Amino acid sequence: MSLTHINEQGKASMVDVSAKPVMAREAVARGRIQLQAATLELIRQNEIKKGDVLAVARIAGVQAAKQTANLIPLCHQLPLSKVGMDFEFEEDGISVTAVAKTAAQTGVEMEALTAVSVALLTIYDMCKAVDKAMRLDGVHLVSKTKEVIE
Amino acid sequence: MSLTHINEQGKASMVDVSAKPVMAREAVARGRIQLQAATLELIRQNEIKKGDVLAVARIAGVQAAKQTANLIPLCHQLPLSKVGMDFEFEEDGISVTAVAKTAAQTGVEMEALTAVSVALLTIYDMCKAVDKAMRLDGVHLVSKTKEVIE
Amino acid sequence: MSLTHINEQGKASMVDVSAKPVMAREAVARGRIQLQAATLELIRQNEIKKGDVLAVARIAGVQAAKQTANLIPLCHQLPLSKVGMDFEFEEDGISVTAVAKTAAQTGVEMEALTAVSVALLTIYDMCKAVDKAMRLDGVHLVSKTKEVIE
Amino acid sequence: MSLTHINEQGKASMVDVSAKPVMAREAVARGRIQLQAATLELIRQNEIKKGDVLAVARIAGVQAAKQTANLIPLCHQLPLSKVGMDFEFEEDGISVTAVAKTAAQTGVEMEALTAVSVALLTIYDMCKAVDKAMRLDGVHLVSKTKEVIE
Amino acid sequence: MSLTHINEQGKASMVDVSAKPVMAREAVARGRIQLQAATLELIRQNEIKKGDVLAVARIAGVQAAKQTANLIPLCHQLPLSKVGMDFEFEEDGISVTAVAKTAAQTGVEMEALTAVSVALLTIYDMCKAVDKAMRLDGVHLVSKTKEVIE
Amino acid sequence: MSLTHINEQGKASMVDVSAKPVMAREAVARGRIQLQAATLELIRQNEIKKGDVLAVARIAGVQAAKQTANLIPLCHQLPLSKVGMDFEFEEDGISVTAVAKTAAQTGVEMEALTAVSVALLTIYDMCKAVDKAMRLDGVHLVSKTKEVIE
Repeated sequence: MSLTHINEQGKASMVDVSAKPVMAREAVARGRIQLQAATLELIRQNEIKKGDVLAVARIAGVQAAKQTANLIPLCHQLPLSKVGMDFEFEEDGISVTAVAKTAAQTGVEMEALTAVSVALLTIYDMCKAVDKAMRLDGVHLVSKTKEVIE
Repeated sequence: MSLTHINEQGKASMVDVSAKPVMAREAVARGRIQLQAATLELIRQNEIKKGDVLAVARIAGVQAAKQTANLIPLCHQLPLSKVGMDFEFEEDGISVTAVAKTAAQTGVEMEALTAVSVALLTIYDMCKAVDKAMRLDGVHLVSKTKEVIE
Repeated sequence: MSLTHINEQGKASMVDVSAKPVMAREAVARGRIQLQAATLELIRQNEIKKGDVLAVARIAGVQAAKQTANLIPLCHQLPLSKVGMDFEFEEDGISVTAVAKTAAQTGVEMEALTAVSVALLTIYDMCKAVDKAMRLDGVHLVSKTKEVIE
Repeated sequence: MSLTHINEQGKASMVDVSAKPVMAREAVARGRIQLQAATLELIRQNEIKKGDVLAVARIAGVQAAKQTANLIPLCHQLPLSKVGMDFEFEEDGISVTAVAKTAAQTGVEMEALTAVSVALLTIYDMCKAVDKAMRLDGVHLVSKTKEVIE
Repeated sequence: MSLTHINEQGKASMVDVSAKPVMAREAVARGRIQLQAATLELIRQNEIKKGDVLAVARIAGVQAAKQTANLIPLCHQLPLSKVGMDFEFEEDGISVTAVAKTAAQTGVEMEALTAVSVALLTIYDMCKAVDKAMRLDGVHLVSKTKEVIE
Repeated sequence: MSLTHINEQGKASMVDVSAKPVMAREAVARGRIQLQAATLELIRQNEIKKGDVLAVARIAGVQAAKQTANLIPLCHQLPLSKVGMDFEFEEDGISVTAVAKTAAQTGVEMEALTAVSVALLTIYDMCKAVDKAMRLDGVHLVSKTKEVIE
C-alpha cells in the first residue's frame, strides 16, 4: 500500500519534525483577567474563600504547561526544562505571564500560552462566587527565541 | 487532633458541596481569536497545512471539557451529559461558543470556559505557522442555569 | 445569540443524554490475539522476559476501561461499578473478554471494548520480542443489557 | 459463553459495587515527613528556593485525590464533594492530614491516603536540595464514616 | 540490600533500554472495522448523528499515540516526532493506517498500533447507534524501521 | 515588561535545568507497609479477594513512576529508561523497593519514591477489607547516582 496520501491537504496530522535540529527554545506568553475592584482587594488580602488565588493559579499554570500535548491535539510532546509564572496586579484585573523553556525540535509557545490560559481560568474559578463580570483577554505570545545548543 | 483549622482562611481546598442538591445545570461560554484576513481565508478553504482547523478545535474543546477538574485544581469532577461546540467566522477572527450540561451539585461554567479556551488555543496552534498576530480575547460566561430534576 | 446551529449535521459533539434515565447497564466485549505456538507456551510457562503477560494485561484492561472517555472523544464519563477481565488460551492465540457495569444514562460498551483492546495491545507489547506475526482480531460486543434500578 | 471463571480467585478485577447503596462517605488520613530543623525553618520562613512548600503540597494533595482511580488500579472512580488538606509543624517534621468526602457506593479512604502521600512527596521534592535525610512515615487512616443520604 | 532479585523471571518491569543507541525509528500499523453498507454510506455522506466520523477518529488516533505509555504498562515514554493517520473505504468496512516516528532507544510500534486501535474504537463509538454488527479485525504491524541519526 | 521578578523568593516555579548536562541517572527508593500476620498469609497464598496483590502493586508502581511529573507539581518530565519493582516479605509487613533510570538533566529520585508510594497504596487498597491496622512507613531514598554518558 502506498502511504502517499497520508497527510493530504485538510487531513489533520502531527507534522514531522524529525529533520529539525534540537535547539534551546524559550517562549513568553501573557494574558489578563478583568476583575472588579472588590475582587482584586479580596485577592490581595487573601480573603477569597477557596484559598490563596495566586498560589493556586501559579501551580495550575505550571502543571498545565506539562499537559499541553494532551490538550492541543497536534502538539508535540516537549520536555520542559523550566516553567515560570508571574502575576501583576493592574487597575482592573490581573495579568499573567508565563515563560517556558525546552531543548527540542519545535517551539514551546503553546506551552506558555496554555500555562497562561489555565492560570487565568483558575483565577476565574476561585473568584466566581464573588465576581460575575470576569473575562479573559489579550492572551498572546510576547516573545519566542531559539539558540543553537553548544 | 482537631480538624477545626482545616480550610481556614487563605488555605486552598476543594470546598464541600455535599449538602447541595443535585440539579440539572447548563452553562454557555464564549471567546474569540483574532486572526488575519489571509488566515481566515486559509481556514475557510481548509488549506492550513496541519489540517482542518475547526474539526480539530471542536474535538479539542470537547475533550478539554472532560479534563476540567484535572486542570483547575479546586474544581469538582462533574459527569457531563452534553458538550457542544460552535464556531462563527467574524470579520477579523473566529468566535467559539461551548455549551456544557450536567446533573450535579455544582455549576458547570468552568467546563464551558475550559472548552472555549482550549478550542481557541488549538486554532492558535494550527495557524501559528502563518499568522504571527493572533490573540485570544473576550473569554466569558454567556449564561448559566439550573433546574430542579423531577 | 441563537445556539440553533450548534450540533448541526456533520459537526461533532458529545450528544445530550440528560433526559435519559439512569439505569443499571452492563456490557461484555471480546477479542483475540493470534500468537505462535511457541509464544503461547512461553506465556503459559510465565517465561516472557517482560513479566507475567496475563497479569499485566488484566490490569491494563481495567485501567483502560476507566480512561475510555479520555480516549474516545465523544464518550460520556461513566462511573464504573465493576470491570472484570477474563483470558482463555486457544489453539493459536488468546481471547480476552471484558465485562463492565455502571449505573448511568448511557451504555457501557465502549468501556468493555476499550478494556479488551488495551489488554490485547498489552499482550502484543510483552510478546513482541519473540513473535513477529501477531494480530488482533474479532474485537466485538458480546452482549449489552440495561435494567431499571429499583 | 459462560463468564463463570471471570474474577476467579487470584485474578485481579475491579469488584462489583453496583448492589451497594449510595451513601455519604468521609475519610480522614494522616502521615508525616521527617525533616531536619534547618529545613523546617526554611519552610516556615518561605525561603525554600522552589517556592512556598505548603501551598504547593496542598494543591498537589487535592489534585492527587482526584487522580486516585487512575493510580490505584482496582479503585472505583468517585466524584469527590470535598477535599481538604491540613499541615502541622512538629518538632522534627510536618504532618499532613487530608479529608475527603463523596456520595458513592464505596469508601473514600484511598482518596484521602493518596492525597496525604502525594502532598508528602511534594514536600520531599521541594526540600530535596537542602535535606538529605527525609523520610515519609505513619501514613494511615484516621477515621472513616458513612451515613444514609436522606 | 541486594537488588539481584529485581526483575527476576515472571516479574513485570519496564526493561532497561539505557544502553541502547538513540535511533530514528518509524512504524506503520494497520487495522480495519467491518461496517454495514448503509453505515459506510452514512459516513461517506457525513450524516452520522454524532459528527464527522473520520475527522474525529483521526484526532483520537493521534492523541492516543501520545498516551501509549500510560495505557500499556511496560511501554517506555517516547517523544513522537510525527503521527499520521490514513483511512480507506473498503467494500465492507474502513481500514485505518497509522505512522509514528521518534528518535529514541526503543521502537515505536506500540504507538502506531495504539493509534490504529483507538481510531477504530472511535469509529465504533460514532456508528454504534446505527450498526449492530461492527467488529475490529486485522490490527497488525505493517513495517518497522530504524536508522542511525547522523 | 521586566521579567526580573519571575521566580522571586517564595513563588513556586519549575526551576531551570537547561544549563545542566544530560547524564545517566539512577535512583533506588524503598518503603514498607505494616500488615497483620493473617493478611501476609492471605497475600502469600494469593487469596486476597481483589486479586494477586503483588502483581497489581508492581504494575501500579511502574505506571505511577511515569506519572510523577503530573503528580508532583514542580517535577520535570523525565523519559524513564527503566523502572523495576521488588517486594520482600518481612515479619510484620512487606517492603517495596523501586529502581528508576533516565538520561536527563535532573535526578530521578521522585520517580522512584512515587513508584514506592503508589505500590504501597495499592497493597493497602487490596487488603483494606481484611486489615484495619495498615500503615505506610519509612519511605526513603536508598541511593542516587549519576554518570557521564560517553
